[in-house]
Amino acid sequence: MQNRLGRQTVALEQPAVILSHAAVGGKQEGEGPLADCFDHLCADSFFGEKTWEKAESAMQKIALSKALEKAALPPEDLDYVFAGDLLNQCIGTSFSLRDFGIPFYGLYGACSTMGESLALASLLVSGGFARKAAAMTSSHFCTAERQYRMPVPYGNQRTPTAQWTATASGCVILGAEGDGPKITAVTCGKIVDKGICDANNMGAAMAPAAYDTLAAHFRATGTGPQDYDLVLTGDLGVLGHQIVTEFFQQDGVDMSKNYQDCGMLLYDIQKQDMHAGASGCGCSASVLCGYLLRQMEANHLRKILFAPTGALLSPTSSFQGESIPSICHALTIEK
Amino acid sequence: MQNRLGRQTVALEQPAVILSHAAVGGKQEGEGPLADCFDHLCADSFFGEKTWEKAESAMQKIALSKALEKAALPPEDLDYVFAGDLLNQCIGTSFSLRDFGIPFYGLYGACSTMGESLALASLLVSGGFARKAAAMTSSHFCTAERQYRMPVPYGNQRTPTAQWTATASGCVILGAEGDGPKITAVTCGKIVDKGICDANNMGAAMAPAAYDTLAAHFRATGTGPQDYDLVLTGDLGVLGHQIVTEFFQQDGVDMSKNYQDCGMLLYDIQKQDMHAGASGCGCSASVLCGYLLRQMEANHLRKILFAPTGALLSPTSSFQGESIPSICHALTIEK
Repeated sequence: MQNRLGRQTVALEQPAVILSHAAVGGKQEGEGPLADCFDHLCADSFFGEKTWEKAESAMQKIALSKALEKAALPPEDLDYVFAGDLLNQCIGTSFSLRDFGIPFYGLYGACSTMGESLALASLLVSGGFARKAAAMTSSHFCTAERQYRMPVPYGNQRTPTAQWTATASGCVILGAEGDGPKITAVTCGKIVDKGICDANNMGAAMAPAAYDTLAAHFRATGTGPQDYDLVLTGDLGVLGHQIVTEFFQQDGVDMSKNYQDCGMLLYDIQKQDMHAGASGCGCSASVLCGYLLRQMEANHLRKILFAPTGALLSPTSSFQGESIPSICHALTIEK
Repeated sequence: MQNRLGRQTVALEQPAVILSHAAVGGKQEGEGPLADCFDHLCADSFFGEKTWEKAESAMQKIALSKALEKAALPPEDLDYVFAGDLLNQCIGTSFSLRDFGIPFYGLYGACSTMGESLALASLLVSGGFARKAAAMTSSHFCTAERQYRMPVPYGNQRTPTAQWTATASGCVILGAEGDGPKITAVTCGKIVDKGICDANNMGAAMAPAAYDTLAAHFRATGTGPQDYDLVLTGDLGVLGHQIVTEFFQQDGVDMSKNYQDCGMLLYDIQKQDMHAGASGCGCSASVLCGYLLRQMEANHLRKILFAPTGALLSPTSSFQGESIPSICHALTIEK
């Protein structure tokens, strides 16, 4: 029996080791403070393809290929890939993986997908069901805008609480053995919906889910923010980050010292005029695969709590007056 | 180390036991040959809700509630639910699960979702990561038609190869111990795309994926069709069923005796004018949770190979001229 710490959290007796990771980004990502952390940057939003959807697939192909290359592995050595994206029917993923021939479990976790894919890949590697597995996701500003909001050329004005969907992809390859950072605990989130209906204020909608999962992870593992070099939510942005901090403050837990949000790290929010910050599956994925894991490898970070958040709405559910169900999955990653 | 039979297949040393199952259906399903096998039938396509999307969520809520009731379990006893559907951003699932408070991993596998959810739930239960877990999916004729094809009131004419999306949901609850049918082997599919572009001929698009996964499962487990009371693909319909049969014939494998397709079982195809048969996540889910598992409990079937198939396209990918990537996951279920 595995070391189950309560209902949501598993402490991995056999940790899953990060063998390699790769991050891909677009123009804005290349102009931001983390530009140097990307393995591949492309200023062309089409990534050489004819449509933005095909560009998103191309990003995932590059991320997976780079991660395989860095681990010196052929695709045949991967037993599974866990992946998904924001596009209807997750076509960014299905078309990117078409030519790799890797057994595939498709996910939909909105912007929590990097957490979900890492969680499931870790559990399967840890349980001996896979020797090596990949976790991957992506988002693209232009595909997300035209699917969720307005046609891009329309130049729709954005509200102050709005976030900017990252044009980015991240891929991690996990194995049972190695010297890289290890995933040692996984918490699966529950859907939390506090009644927020404003699809331009995802940070507020997702913050209660982030709080719920982080609190569950702290309780189950007997840790607090002080036990991590950094606690990171996915893409709550400035407002959601503030709400989570306040929620914990009410519990007497101080998150002010080492809590960050990936949506606040990817861009220079002021200079790049990014309103509340970055969002999209590719945000937390590329911040992890580009910045955070490099920081761990350089020993600047030794133990982090990574908790991507997702808003499980659709334009249809919003049109039908529904509020925004959200979710967050959390992982302890340490050296 | 688990008993990995090659790259795609795991034989579960600790099988996952089916504790309960429930099937929900709509009007056409209640007029078909499997009507008596449903736990809940509703002739109102709105299931008492204001929109079809909310009706689809209602179906999943009923399926999960019925399955919990039949296993005499409260939602708190489930460590995970694995679920997804065909709707953009899988809102059928996220809104159905909002009030249950069960840790949730969202999936997108198109019509293969019942196979994918059962596979992952089985692996996590078998590996000791969960005591009990649910696998669930749904589809709804009216939500699928308006999302993938034409507005329903338009009365669009259907081609002879077209299938009818089932208005149905199925839910299975798995545990580590019990007397029910057991999941003993799981094969994860790869994406297969042979270049079919006709979104009204999903059977032909998905058949090569079904063949690929079934052949991998046979190879890895050292079995053939003769070792099962019944081999079932998900929702290939009449044409896809014929193609799979012919593919195996070319290999000298006789599938003519005990191979069926869920899409051919759910309706009386002639009388109900269902063209090539049923499709949708809810098709294989309700045929399994309604008909097949009851047949196993009555000892009419003792060992089956259940292999739901999914077409990983979207209207956008079709508009952009892409072919249809497909996938199939397979499970051995036996008493």
